[in-house]
Amino acid sequence: MNSHVIDAIKNRRSIREYTDAPVPRDQLYAIIEAGSWAPSGLNNQPWRFVTITDGTIKEHLAKLTQYSHIIMAAPALIAVYLDTALMYDTVKDIQSAGACIQNMLLAAEAIDLAGVWLGQILKNMGQVNAVLGLPDTYDLMAILAFGYPEHHNQSSTRKSIEEFLIKEL
Amino acid sequence: MNSHVIDAIKNRRSIREYTDAPVPRDQLYAIIEAGSWAPSGLNNQPWRFVTITDGTIKEHLAKLTQYSHIIMAAPALIAVYLDTALMYDTVKDIQSAGACIQNMLLAAEAIDLAGVWLGQILKNMGQVNAVLGLPDTYDLMAILAFGYPEHHNQSSTRKSIEEFLIKEL
Repeated sequence: MNSHVIDAIKNRRSIREYTDAPVPRDQLYAIIEAGSWAPSGLNNQPWRFVTITDGTIKEHLAKLTQYSHIIMAAPALIAVYLDTALMYDTVKDIQSAGACIQNMLLAAEAIDLAGVWLGQILKNMGQVNAVLGLPDTYDLMAILAFGYPEHHNQSSTRKSIEEFLIKEL
Repeated sequence: MNSHVIDAIKNRRSIREYTDAPVPRDQLYAIIEAGSWAPSGLNNQPWRFVTITDGTIKEHLAKLTQYSHIIMAAPALIAVYLDTALMYDTVKDIQSAGACIQNMLLAAEAIDLAGVWLGQILKNMGQVNAVLGLPDTYDLMAILAFGYPEHHNQSSTRKSIEEFLIKEL
């Protein structure tokens, strides 16, 4: 029984306010490594990543989403991609991107960082690839913002088990 | 720093061999609750679940996948669905299903169970819904098999960070 893991899952929050402290490169690597331990169909490991700490690049990205303030406030971003050349099943590969992202968010909190999953920017995925200098063979899945949290008092709620559980057979 | 979480992420394995011990209902609820703490776009919480321990239902499901031996060996299954009435963006909802499933797999190991993510059965999702008595407004995402593990010596490997990290900007 490892109650730390259950607690971490329940206590993770989407944190959008960070201190100015930069995120060390080895912390970003630790987050990516945790992401890579997600399961994937046929263990195809289709996820690819771009780390972004450069201010000018962040300014360009900020123009592509309504959440520009989060992009600018976060000391570090990680863009999560699927390499379409490695994909074998669209739905399952997109699911595995979600599993990968969840590992990354949990790992960030485990190393005293905090982050948030930004999806609204996907509507401009072509322009994101242009800013990052990536060919369209990479499918943007999300941009994750990370930093040392200003707080961890973001509240969140979930429905009850009765609403989620359709049947017990 | 919570090294338990990082260790749990790296040490999780797809376990396909279980003891005959049944999985208590409250353990299945704990796994579902952990799943529900995944993030979802607009916090729409689109995931729905069916727990299955009935032998006859398992036999019917086993006929719908090449992994029938896992379906039959597992004391408990949880079918993970998206409620299409709650979906707001196909890609993001499928990603959040992946995040939910990853939480469930991590939570299972945290409570001394083990499991495996079965995706091949998705090719027969219509028949799965028929067996479970569900309308097609529920989109099958995966069936997860759970039980007390016979072992935890399944090995797995991941590529190196250099292969995953496309650029550092």
